[in-house]
Amino acid sequence: MRLRHKPWAQDRINDYPQYVSPAPETHRGHWQERFEKQQPLHIEVGSGKGQFIINLAKQNPEINYIALEIQTSVTVMILDKQIEAQLPNLQIIHGNGGHLNQYFAPGEVDLVYLNFSDPWPKKRHEKRRLTSKNFLEQYREVLKPEGEIHFKTDNRGLFEYSLANLSQCGWILKQVWLDLHEDGLSNNVITEYEEKFSQKGHPIYRLEAYYPIDTH
Amino acid sequence: MRLRHKPWAQDRINDYPQYVSPAPETHRGHWQERFEKQQPLHIEVGSGKGQFIINLAKQNPEINYIALEIQTSVTVMILDKQIEAQLPNLQIIHGNGGHLNQYFAPGEVDLVYLNFSDPWPKKRHEKRRLTSKNFLEQYREVLKPEGEIHFKTDNRGLFEYSLANLSQCGWILKQVWLDLHEDGLSNNVITEYEEKFSQKGHPIYRLEAYYPIDTH
Repeated sequence: MRLRHKPWAQDRINDYPQYVSPAPETHRGHWQERFEKQQPLHIEVGSGKGQFIINLAKQNPEINYIALEIQTSVTVMILDKQIEAQLPNLQIIHGNGGHLNQYFAPGEVDLVYLNFSDPWPKKRHEKRRLTSKNFLEQYREVLKPEGEIHFKTDNRGLFEYSLANLSQCGWILKQVWLDLHEDGLSNNVITEYEEKFSQKGHPIYRLEAYYPIDTH
Repeated sequence: MRLRHKPWAQDRINDYPQYVSPAPETHRGHWQERFEKQQPLHIEVGSGKGQFIINLAKQNPEINYIALEIQTSVTVMILDKQIEAQLPNLQIIHGNGGHLNQYFAPGEVDLVYLNFSDPWPKKRHEKRRLTSKNFLEQYREVLKPEGEIHFKTDNRGLFEYSLANLSQCGWILKQVWLDLHEDGLSNNVITEYEEKFSQKGHPIYRLEAYYPIDTH
């Protein structure tokens, strides 16, 4: 996402430590203390402008959500939505999706959402894709046993890569959608990107996957 | 495929035992004896009118092929192509894809092709789909270790099902194509169906998968 530089963004983030902790790694293993209720924890890696996770958090008060976003100027857009909504079940991490195990203890997370992440189409950028090996290892580490990844994208190349790579890294595909808006999914929460791309007639791809418990 | 009844078809098949063995189960473990050369064995389950496998066999004389087809009136169409082409590396089985382990010994097959098989969209017909559990077990049994399935279809529902079911049955997705003719695949051999559906602008889906050797 290309955005105007917002020099005031970090100041604004600093003003709301109750929503964006200045030291997220200090809550590792204790995130439930930052929420009103102890309940399942779902995180989104790369939340962008935040429409998806804000709407999820509104619709599901029985689940705690954490939006993780690396870009300062985008994190502030999630924050602005949260300042307005004041959801007791939403926290924001301004941080790096590649450091998940610094933010979360093993098994602390119930579900990981990945939505319309950057496809990084060049082979030499494979490691930056959010479904590449090192990221998958992080998800596996912070997820509870058989905790799921829910992944959506409009990018065919990224989805082809992700199906094969998840499989080769030992994940099981629970379900796959190759045209989400045609196939239908009850309670599908739309992201900003999804709205835009779907209107152009592009199919939206989706998968749910989990890492199996070793029964050997 | 709905076809006119051809009462003469079985007679014609009986006339060419060198191409369509009257007792395919008697060659179990010895199929190489039916070919001019001993070389890798690739089979197609559900060959339809045979364009795909006939062209493959012409292009790859260094591989032996077996076309398997259950319908008499379609098997005769493959046979007619073979009577004309007289390929030394092609045999035909007029039989049931659900009985693969009666036709082949464990590990006798190097690769299984599945092309545009019937989607059987109703849940109660799941067992008839060529990528359902019982069929996958047969492929696993007759394939050599890490031998591959190459599967193509234009049917979105069948492909979604197949990706998830292969994964859940322990197969690894080596590569996935979600729009084969856009993505490109060198040496793609076109089937009759593929020609028709692709011209209508439908995407063609494809996957390659293998069952991993248990390294535990």
